Amino acid sequence: MQWTKVLGLGLGAAALLGLGIILGHFAIPKKANSPDLDLEILETVMGQLDAHRIRENLRELSREPHLASSPRDEDLVQLLLQRWKDPESGLDSAEAFTYEVLLSFPSQEQPNVVDIAMTLPPPPTVGPTGDIIHSCHRTEENVTGEQGGPDVIQPYAAYAPSGNPQGLLVYANHGTEDDFKELQTQGIKLEGTIALTRYGGVGRGDKAVNAAKHGVAGVLVYTDPADINDGLSSPSETFPNSWYLPPSGVERGSYYKYFGDPLTPYLPAIPSSFRLDLANISGFPPIPTQPIVCSLGCPAHNLNGTSAPTTWQGALGCHYRLGPGFRPDGNFSADSQVNVSVYNRLELRNSSNVLGIIRGAVEPGEPLLCSGCHCYSPRAHLSLSSGSLPLFLCSDRYVLYGNHRDSWVHGAVDPSSGTAVLLELSRVLGTLLKKGEWLTPVIPALWEAKAGGSRGQEFKTSLLGVVAGAYRWRTRPVVGAGEGPAPRLNSPSGQIRSPGPGDLSIYDNWIRYFNRSSPVYGLVPSLGSLGAGSDYAPFIHFLGISSMDIAYTYDRSKTSARIYPTYHTAFDTFDYPWPCDLAAGFSSHQAVARTAGSIILRLSDSFFLPLKVSDYSETLRSFLQAAQQDLGALLEQHSISLGPLVTAVEKFEAEAAALGQRISMLQKGSPDPLQVRMLNDQLMLLERSFLNPRAFPEERYYSHVLWAARTGSVATFPGLSNACSRANDTASGSEAWAEVQRQLSIVVTALEGAAATLRPVADL
Amino acid sequence: MQWTKVLGLGLGAAALLGLGIILGHFAIPKKANSPDLDLEILETVMGQLDAHRIRENLRELSREPHLASSPRDEDLVQLLLQRWKDPESGLDSAEAFTYEVLLSFPSQEQPNVVDIAMTLPPPPTVGPTGDIIHSCHRTEENVTGEQGGPDVIQPYAAYAPSGNPQGLLVYANHGTEDDFKELQTQGIKLEGTIALTRYGGVGRGDKAVNAAKHGVAGVLVYTDPADINDGLSSPSETFPNSWYLPPSGVERGSYYKYFGDPLTPYLPAIPSSFRLDLANISGFPPIPTQPIVCSLGCPAHNLNGTSAPTTWQGALGCHYRLGPGFRPDGNFSADSQVNVSVYNRLELRNSSNVLGIIRGAVEPGEPLLCSGCHCYSPRAHLSLSSGSLPLFLCSDRYVLYGNHRDSWVHGAVDPSSGTAVLLELSRVLGTLLKKGEWLTPVIPALWEAKAGGSRGQEFKTSLLGVVAGAYRWRTRPVVGAGEGPAPRLNSPSGQIRSPGPGDLSIYDNWIRYFNRSSPVYGLVPSLGSLGAGSDYAPFIHFLGISSMDIAYTYDRSKTSARIYPTYHTAFDTFDYPWPCDLAAGFSSHQAVARTAGSIILRLSDSFFLPLKVSDYSETLRSFLQAAQQDLGALLEQHSISLGPLVTAVEKFEAEAAALGQRISMLQKGSPDPLQVRMLNDQLMLLERSFLNPRAFPEERYYSHVLWAARTGSVATFPGLSNACSRANDTASGSEAWAEVQRQLSIVVTALEGAAATLRPVADL
Repeated sequence: MQWTKVLGLGLGAAALLGLGIILGHFAIPKKANSPDLDLEILETVMGQLDAHRIRENLRELSREPHLASSPRDEDLVQLLLQRWKDPESGLDSAEAFTYEVLLSFPSQEQPNVVDIAMTLPPPPTVGPTGDIIHSCHRTEENVTGEQGGPDVIQPYAAYAPSGNPQGLLVYANHGTEDDFKELQTQGIKLEGTIALTRYGGVGRGDKAVNAAKHGVAGVLVYTDPADINDGLSSPSETFPNSWYLPPSGVERGSYYKYFGDPLTPYLPAIPSSFRLDLANISGFPPIPTQPIVCSLGCPAHNLNGTSAPTTWQGALGCHYRLGPGFRPDGNFSADSQVNVSVYNRLELRNSSNVLGIIRGAVEPGEPLLCSGCHCYSPRAHLSLSSGSLPLFLCSDRYVLYGNHRDSWVHGAVDPSSGTAVLLELSRVLGTLLKKGEWLTPVIPALWEAKAGGSRGQEFKTSLLGVVAGAYRWRTRPVVGAGEGPAPRLNSPSGQIRSPGPGDLSIYDNWIRYFNRSSPVYGLVPSLGSLGAGSDYAPFIHFLGISSMDIAYTYDRSKTSARIYPTYHTAFDTFDYPWPCDLAAGFSSHQAVARTAGSIILRLSDSFFLPLKVSDYSETLRSFLQAAQQDLGALLEQHSISLGPLVTAVEKFEAEAAALGQRISMLQKGSPDPLQVRMLNDQLMLLERSFLNPRAFPEERYYSHVLWAARTGSVATFPGLSNACSRANDTASGSEAWAEVQRQLSIVVTALEGAAATLRPVADL
Repeated sequence: MQWTKVLGLGLGAAALLGLGIILGHFAIPKKANSPDLDLEILETVMGQLDAHRIRENLRELSREPHLASSPRDEDLVQLLLQRWKDPESGLDSAEAFTYEVLLSFPSQEQPNVVDIAMTLPPPPTVGPTGDIIHSCHRTEENVTGEQGGPDVIQPYAAYAPSGNPQGLLVYANHGTEDDFKELQTQGIKLEGTIALTRYGGVGRGDKAVNAAKHGVAGVLVYTDPADINDGLSSPSETFPNSWYLPPSGVERGSYYKYFGDPLTPYLPAIPSSFRLDLANISGFPPIPTQPIVCSLGCPAHNLNGTSAPTTWQGALGCHYRLGPGFRPDGNFSADSQVNVSVYNRLELRNSSNVLGIIRGAVEPGEPLLCSGCHCYSPRAHLSLSSGSLPLFLCSDRYVLYGNHRDSWVHGAVDPSSGTAVLLELSRVLGTLLKKGEWLTPVIPALWEAKAGGSRGQEFKTSLLGVVAGAYRWRTRPVVGAGEGPAPRLNSPSGQIRSPGPGDLSIYDNWIRYFNRSSPVYGLVPSLGSLGAGSDYAPFIHFLGISSMDIAYTYDRSKTSARIYPTYHTAFDTFDYPWPCDLAAGFSSHQAVARTAGSIILRLSDSFFLPLKVSDYSETLRSFLQAAQQDLGALLEQHSISLGPLVTAVEKFEAEAAALGQRISMLQKGSPDPLQVRMLNDQLMLLERSFLNPRAFPEERYYSHVLWAARTGSVATFPGLSNACSRANDTASGSEAWAEVQRQLSIVVTALEGAAATLRPVADL
């Protein structure tokens, strides 16, 4: 099957982390018995991470749907606690933190419905109209026996309001602002219509926001086979016969603009916290919205009107038109309307984050005050126990790694593939911990998606001490055909074998599929940016904690699927990734576990934090160049100079290089732990220096001036890119250009501050 | 002279610092040759701080007016640089950082004028009216020969707008919101009037803001002898014959609401930074405002109308009435109007902050990477040079001490008394530094008042590492009569002798004049809160750096002066504090230098930061009790529970106590420097955990949830106090009470976070 051949590794990360770790791993010679990463421990961990156990974890986790706050999700909380408190393989401690969060559900009594109805009398009509001549499917077809259970929640748009709009149907492509403008340009009257949009191109909630601005009354969202299935849609061509989405598949999702609990922005969602009035909440879709299936007799097949532009055409097996309304020669009469009936409910529900702690060890007989520090490896630790150095180590620096736990349905890939890996990794680390063999502070965490944002509030003060932030990984349908020998560890360099044909290491495989040319290193693995969504957002964007997202993904040169096809559908079940990975023995999950484990150990145990600040320089330089090339002339026209930005980037580059040299020099000798601590603090705090809570006042939480969401087209500093994009709009005036200048000053100030962070403090 | 007997010591400080230092000093036994504060160095510094040198510093600094950006102020920048680069007594480095700031000046060509004029024809009249029958003095009288020079800037209200309002005069007491409401209650029509207000009671700019809300056209501000002079005002009773303000004295000052450069909020005021349009600046007084003298034939003597309330009466030697307009039997006709002509100008000017750095020392032969750390004293340092501990110390933690440099006129007390002391202290430290005898990181800084706020922007990332913040001291007319022996150091306890009669230490003198009962310690010195104004504001309120303000002040039981009488006038000259301090040999300045020096050394050199977090507990407990007693019932009526606050305070208390115990336990042994570093980080970062940039969105910069300005009457957490006060207003609705709940949640979250900061990190 073609799809089993897809293979790849993607690594979204803050530029700081990934490359530095990978290259640092190869570049820095390790000394025997030095207070540094213990390669034996690393090999042990690599060897003990068991693919079968990961598989069994996944089987259990994805056995039933586990929507946030559902009884099954609560069962999983207990499962986690049990695992993390196991006497032989558990952690030092584990606790569930429960929050009261505002969740959205479809009504059990009245499912959301989308009908086509005759109109009697002629439109516009309010309320039920004529005979229903077509009903869109409300649920997904029970193809593998797992889609039919009572806990399989109906496809719906979480946080979309209830309502019963009806109107003529129009087709609005992805539902971006430009898409709606195109419809207007085509002379289509949008007021009171129902807009059919396809997933992708813009955030879910934004489709409704954009539609509402143009007077649209309701929004439908579907998955086009062109975007997800390489055009395929028949049952024989889709799951379980391939990885593609079955024709009845519908993507669920949150349509809320922000992360975290909607009622308690910037506060923990505990019962006593101040809560907004529902009336004062912003970020919900303004009009009723419903995801639907659009394959069998889809309304899209029958639209009237102008042909849709070429880029708007999909693979529904018909020629797409814009509407409004249906073709007289189609299945519905020309004046038939689409009735959208949404009965979503908002409810306050309890949901938990589960945190485990691995503290590390202490000198025998000492009270548990301080424990493992990345300054000392446990072996070196123990060997020094009779020496002159006392053994209190830096236990105020942690690596946090986590995943979100709750799923829309079974969630075998999203999120439970990550949870399964996390459980196995924590088992291996916990086992070493219980045996006294490994001693470094790590916080494994499994959060609930909505409460995740709230998590930041309560613990942000403590988390200021976290070394690196969230790890989140998703394994996707992976695995090359023709697996060779069982995965092994290439010691002593600690390379992890990549699943798939051949004997490639992860590193080599990575370079093969995602590479770029670095002016410094030559050909290197390419790291994506973290982007502005997903679980790491509170950590990187709000708290300024360097974060990494690790995922094994599919070969994007072999498919145009925008995401793995069963994402957020009832088909994301245990047997979805399974057959392909069967031959490989879940080796892709295991490869992720090993990669994550290796990174965690390196971050925790290395004497010097393996963070290469000069890699950040490359990103800044690239942003600068894009600004100069693509915005330079425009800015000059408005008397805005990029000079200070050039200076700031150069300063950063110089300081980053100088710091790198100081570290290199120290690494050759036997540096004092205090000095190492100071340097590591500088490395750790660098990310924080890019936060500015006043940079984007209209955005909630987002404060990172390098990684905030970029809507502008130029791949440069997002605030600058976005402001230029807005200012360039012909309707904008001098105020918009003043904002461009302000954003530029914000970036310059941040870079100057970041550069200062890297200097010896005495050189203010 | 009575006023020479006034004596006292005030210490405004974040509660964390002062008491802990003072008590820690007495409580913690010092071991010989321990890596801790070196008492010999302390004694040396105490002994070398020379009162005469301080005097000569002050003489030079106050020789001429040195307004911000004036040539003389620039000369002083050079003087500082010269001193701090002196080969024998200078620092490691010193640099001036120049900013382009928006300053306000009166016009040299057209001085501001306040006249009384006949009205022809009858009012209201726009523009010049009739004959001027009285002009208020434009300048202060040249009493001592120093008030007449060309650089003595005319009294004016900096940042007040230009304009020429005229109208009937009303008297508005301090010009608070309540004062204007009182006038309304009295049936006085405020529209188009000129309001005469007296200094005090509310911030300068607020008088104009409040007035404008009621339709007042212009504001005059004067200093009432009751508030400053204990009612005295004749030349024989005032300076130079006493410390009281001469009858022609006028207080200048900034009437801008915020600190920092008005054009570049949250950005450094460098030329390339984004600047607001003047039209978009908020925080300036909305109507023309002018400070005047009100002693000789003051308009206030002649007001008509109802008697002013008793508390509004002052000491101008007449019965105060409210107006509007003048008494027919007075000096002016009943319909005479007051013409206020303000010609202030806003100008962009260059002004500098000067920073010096004392890095500390390194092991001979090592590159200058790291230097002095509070973990090791220099003596211990040197004695360990052949031991097993390498000598890289924590040079990323600094004590910043500073003062502002520019003055309104001569500024002998404000600010140059502080500058004089700072110069002497840096000379002594620099001398030890050059001799290699003292090695601890300190940053002396002298900032320009407006650029001070901007300072924070550029360096805030680096300053995150500053241990304790700004010291600012002002010496005031001080000194007891009958000085005894020259001040000496009481070793080994290091007590500093207090100037004044008797043989009291600073500590004993302090307890005598400002004491309180601590539930933990019994009778202790009392520390005032830092408040929301003055130079430390950016450090404590915006950056969350623990700060202390040290000032020798007058005995407030012997005078009701709200501030030292010549504050911001042309009479604040070198000979103003001098005669009283002559007999004492500037010993009060010296006492401040010793106190500051002692604190700096203790902060820099003590192994454990001498910050007692349990002192913070006392403040929180006191805030909580006030909230319970004075707001509890009211909150309950609105279903707002203080329960979570009680829990949060208790948690903090418990964690603070536990941390204190951990430290005590460690102090008995030989703790590892890394462990000490970790604990010191917790102590240092505690202050930071109280910052919330979203707590007070209408306030610029102010983010500290404990020390933000409190306008509410209940002495509790300011956000809560202020919100309750506003909500309790009969006109407010449920939104106001929602804000109370929000503020409560903000405090609870901050306290929980702060408590978490104090825990061993493993105990999340």
